[in-house]
Amino acid sequence: MKWLKAAADEIVESIKLSIEELNMSEVEKLIELLLKARDEKIFTVGMGRSGFVARSFALRLMNLGFNVYFLGETITPAAEKGDLLIAISGTGTTKMVLTASSAAKEIRAKVIAITSFPESPLGHLADLVVTVKGRTKAGLPREEDYLARQIIGEREPLTPLGSIFENNCMVFLDSLIVELMHRLGRTEVDLKRRHATLE
Amino acid sequence: MKWLKAAADEIVESIKLSIEELNMSEVEKLIELLLKARDEKIFTVGMGRSGFVARSFALRLMNLGFNVYFLGETITPAAEKGDLLIAISGTGTTKMVLTASSAAKEIRAKVIAITSFPESPLGHLADLVVTVKGRTKAGLPREEDYLARQIIGEREPLTPLGSIFENNCMVFLDSLIVELMHRLGRTEVDLKRRHATLE
Amino acid sequence: MKWLKAAADEIVESIKLSIEELNMSEVEKLIELLLKARDEKIFTVGMGRSGFVARSFALRLMNLGFNVYFLGETITPAAEKGDLLIAISGTGTTKMVLTASSAAKEIRAKVIAITSFPESPLGHLADLVVTVKGRTKAGLPREEDYLARQIIGEREPLTPLGSIFENNCMVFLDSLIVELMHRLGRTEVDLKRRHATLE
Amino acid sequence: MKWLKAAADEIVESIKLSIEELNMSEVEKLIELLLKARDEKIFTVGMGRSGFVARSFALRLMNLGFNVYFLGETITPAAEKGDLLIAISGTGTTKMVLTASSAAKEIRAKVIAITSFPESPLGHLADLVVTVKGRTKAGLPREEDYLARQIIGEREPLTPLGSIFENNCMVFLDSLIVELMHRLGRTEVDLKRRHATLE
Repeated sequence: MKWLKAAADEIVESIKLSIEELNMSEVEKLIELLLKARDEKIFTVGMGRSGFVARSFALRLMNLGFNVYFLGETITPAAEKGDLLIAISGTGTTKMVLTASSAAKEIRAKVIAITSFPESPLGHLADLVVTVKGRTKAGLPREEDYLARQIIGEREPLTPLGSIFENNCMVFLDSLIVELMHRLGRTEVDLKRRHATLE
Repeated sequence: MKWLKAAADEIVESIKLSIEELNMSEVEKLIELLLKARDEKIFTVGMGRSGFVARSFALRLMNLGFNVYFLGETITPAAEKGDLLIAISGTGTTKMVLTASSAAKEIRAKVIAITSFPESPLGHLADLVVTVKGRTKAGLPREEDYLARQIIGEREPLTPLGSIFENNCMVFLDSLIVELMHRLGRTEVDLKRRHATLE
Repeated sequence: MKWLKAAADEIVESIKLSIEELNMSEVEKLIELLLKARDEKIFTVGMGRSGFVARSFALRLMNLGFNVYFLGETITPAAEKGDLLIAISGTGTTKMVLTASSAAKEIRAKVIAITSFPESPLGHLADLVVTVKGRTKAGLPREEDYLARQIIGEREPLTPLGSIFENNCMVFLDSLIVELMHRLGRTEVDLKRRHATLE
Repeated sequence: MKWLKAAADEIVESIKLSIEELNMSEVEKLIELLLKARDEKIFTVGMGRSGFVARSFALRLMNLGFNVYFLGETITPAAEKGDLLIAISGTGTTKMVLTASSAAKEIRAKVIAITSFPESPLGHLADLVVTVKGRTKAGLPREEDYLARQIIGEREPLTPLGSIFENNCMVFLDSLIVELMHRLGRTEVDLKRRHATLE
């Protein structure tokens, strides 16, 4: 299990570093927007594994009593001016996320980007960027880059593709939920009252 | 396109017949429960293609302003006493649907079964059964039944598995939406205001 | 139940008409592409209720043994040159569907549009358009159009938004499955062998 | 951000501990079953946030070339004797997960439970249990337990409900993917070739 343990160590170190490197004024603005949006609608969006992180966060916001939806699910209503879209994309280039974010901007909903790359298309489009570090290299490797780096000895993470970002992002958002719980004066029992019972 | 046309004719005839054969006092009770549930939560559930019909219906109920969720999606909250679960299963035997329906009964939510078989486990468990006809034979054929029927010349539908029920059910529920629109005095413009805009 | 019955009649008439008005040479080309794609991957895509139709079709293609995926679900792999994307959008303007279709064109996958509007952005982008009629008016009504039509007495369908297209499309694709079954020599028992058993 | 940082610390410590406390002979058996299942089908299942972890794992197994499905999605085929079901449930009591696992046992598919409670109904039913620690208290608190613990001063985790398990499980499974990559001789470039391109 040498590789399993090495990968777990790498993930844990990466999570710790990504929390330390958060820009807390970005996070404070995010919290303000979330607390102000309690009478509006909040939408989260992401594709693939970032989408699962976006759904996990939406589920906890629902537990907390927010009016929240994951984009693409059945009962997602119309977004309106003043609503929030929380767009999660490590690279900030995911096509479907950009399409939704542009649509949100057009109707004057606010877009919050959670990404490793504030200079990405998503970062440029967003009203607020919260930078969550992922891989140290920009973007996913193209095949030729990957081989080049192996030759010159640059280190790639053990976990493939966006895994580092996704784990960092998951822990960041779960920690943010705890911060929100305390600011709102909510306990776990409050959350449990809203937790799915038929499944 | 001989088979395409024959199948379309069969589906259309089956839909017409299934609407004629609806028990309108069952449908009236369903409408009453839906209208009474406007301050409660409504959940729909179904697996596979019946699940897609259940989601299509939930989406239109959302357009109409109901507080509705599809079971298994991200933001589905806790069901409570007095809530409605609309369970769709042609055979009335789908395991996951029975599990959810039993859980709903335990917390004293009301279960409405939409099924071809009122005498099925789902039918027996439900507070209200709305029978929507599907295949004329009970249940899906086991391999040996299927061969037997071919030998003795009984006719099977051209469309496979639950297709007949799913189409009948889809048209029934879309027509029910129109009935609800008129009873609630809602127009298409009202519905459009709640229709997804970011996708 | 006056409105329920009127709506069901309207849906049934619309389905019949839409099947009659199919351009069978478009359908024949679709069948050819599907049969040729048996060693390639097929993707279906659609948003909202068109998405549920796209999933219902994907499920039956899976039952038939095709290598098929619904875009946005967990295990959807990379599309490659030669793969098929079946894009379903009544208006042919759905943003997410256009984004996916453009991405498919870039990697030289083939795009098949199933839409009411062959002159829409989706229609123009597609390698093959199969026209399935929906509402007789182009597109969904803007609020001002809707009111204008009510004043001048033009008739709108009873069912709201894209319902007419979605039902027409569902019956068309289910009938297409029967045509494919016969061309491939498959029976319902073959399909049942591949049908979900754990749910 | 006092609570955010405290929660992140707690999550990170919990992940580290849960990896240290893994029973590596359980993990070795899991790897053996996965490697043997390369010609069979693998299904993952979970509800709510455990379901998102189950999907994230399924996505990476797909990237690695496994024939894998998330239960409840569109194209999930029939399970058969010899297939694997990987069932994720922190408490080991999730109703839908138990229903699917029982169905899997009936057709003689193998059930692997990933849970904090090997003595749970899911644990008892499974062919292999891999224990991933979650909250130190058994199960989620009932309201009265919760209040009792506050009075007597027992410590509850800062993150609510199943968050601790879900994060531990996510990091465990992502680390397991790295172990599998090395045992199979796969690189990130191999995985990227199978990664979704149309989204």
